[in-house]
Amino acid sequence: RRGEMAKSTQLIDNEVFRAYATYTVIVLLKMMLMSLITAYFRITRKAFVNPEDTASFGKGDSAKKFLRTDPDVERARRGHLNDLENIVPFVGIGLLYALSGPELSTALLHFRIFAGARIFHTLAYLIPLPQPGRGLSWAVGYSVTFSMAYKVLKTALLL
Amino acid sequence: RRGEMAKSTQLIDNEVFRAYATYTVIVLLKMMLMSLITAYFRITRKAFVNPEDTASFGKGDSAKKFLRTDPDVERARRGHLNDLENIVPFVGIGLLYALSGPELSTALLHFRIFAGARIFHTLAYLIPLPQPGRGLSWAVGYSVTFSMAYKVLKTALLL
Amino acid sequence: RRGEMAKSTQLIDNEVFRAYATYTVIVLLKMMLMSLITAYFRITRKAFVNPEDTASFGKGDSAKKFLRTDPDVERARRGHLNDLENIVPFVGIGLLYALSGPELSTALLHFRIFAGARIFHTLAYLIPLPQPGRGLSWAVGYSVTFSMAYKVLKTALLL
Repeated sequence: RRGEMAKSTQLIDNEVFRAYATYTVIVLLKMMLMSLITAYFRITRKAFVNPEDTASFGKGDSAKKFLRTDPDVERARRGHLNDLENIVPFVGIGLLYALSGPELSTALLHFRIFAGARIFHTLAYLIPLPQPGRGLSWAVGYSVTFSMAYKVLKTALLL
Repeated sequence: RRGEMAKSTQLIDNEVFRAYATYTVIVLLKMMLMSLITAYFRITRKAFVNPEDTASFGKGDSAKKFLRTDPDVERARRGHLNDLENIVPFVGIGLLYALSGPELSTALLHFRIFAGARIFHTLAYLIPLPQPGRGLSWAVGYSVTFSMAYKVLKTALLL
Repeated sequence: RRGEMAKSTQLIDNEVFRAYATYTVIVLLKMMLMSLITAYFRITRKAFVNPEDTASFGKGDSAKKFLRTDPDVERARRGHLNDLENIVPFVGIGLLYALSGPELSTALLHFRIFAGARIFHTLAYLIPLPQPGRGLSWAVGYSVTFSMAYKVLKTALLL
């Protein structure tokens, strides 16, 4: 089994794959942070959606008034969903891209721009910054994923 | 490093893996297209959710009236969420399936049916087509992913 | 091609990778189950969102009354979205973790706790159990993913 074990860890020794691993963990942790931000706003704004979540505020009508939507909670939730919609394609296409043999410098350029764009997108959403700040950061991340998709199809296309 | 580099690109030389890469990129790009369709409906129907997105339409009440929901926008958003719910399992389980050593022809059959079903699902949702068109295309994609999951567990089960 | 084929299937022979494959399929199937639960509640509670989905109940106002939200449907949908938010990072970070050379026993501990926590989370959401049951199971799964992310960055960091 030792031989197989050694082989299976070779992928993580490859520099492009290490870069992919690093930036994938960064953007997924950033996405996970949105759960904490939503929870923070739910608790500080006292705005919940499940009756069982307000039980500690008392019974009946006194707890019921906390079953409501709040603009800050909804904003954090939209940012979270936008992350899912954009980070999922990055993680999936990025893995195939990292395995398609790009130059390390080119790969790092893609990964760094994507991570920077998504971190900016979250700030632009939560502060919020005036448009087109959020829109442009979304488009930059989108374009990076599209560029990686093109490289994967050029290298691997088998329909 | 050269040796490792060569080894890490072998995966993408494998035909089943190339087929997986091709169809994963196709369905993820299709999912990303939903963002553009939602944006198109938001702009043409003038239906936004963030106050900062309507600032270019003027100030105060003249901009506020564009903070509203629109049936076409909501329909595109539901299609996008349905993609997330179904394409994420395909990408994750499909990767493991591609590594579990299936015949190329069997793998291609799975990937092609899934991609076709999801493209049809989007058309059925957006046109919209009468049921059970959308429901059936959803079930076909779901069954393909289930079939791949069965093969992975049969090959790799280690609890 | 035979040599490459053999090499590409080695990953699935590695025990840590087999454990990752097993638990990833389990949690993704559990997530896919949420679609069936939502569909079950939509049909039994007669609560739909698309006009074309209610066409079989008759025409006009007689069908229109089934275009409504239902607490059980919404609860299942929230559980599904929570799965997406938490299982996507597990699948992505878990893959890199499995390739970073952890001990099999340590990896199994991570995967088992995550899968158990997410299955409990779904039960806590659907029954529903009083808090902090659901909150704690969410935090346990979140912590497992965070622990794997730490190991990946420690092994592979290349910024």
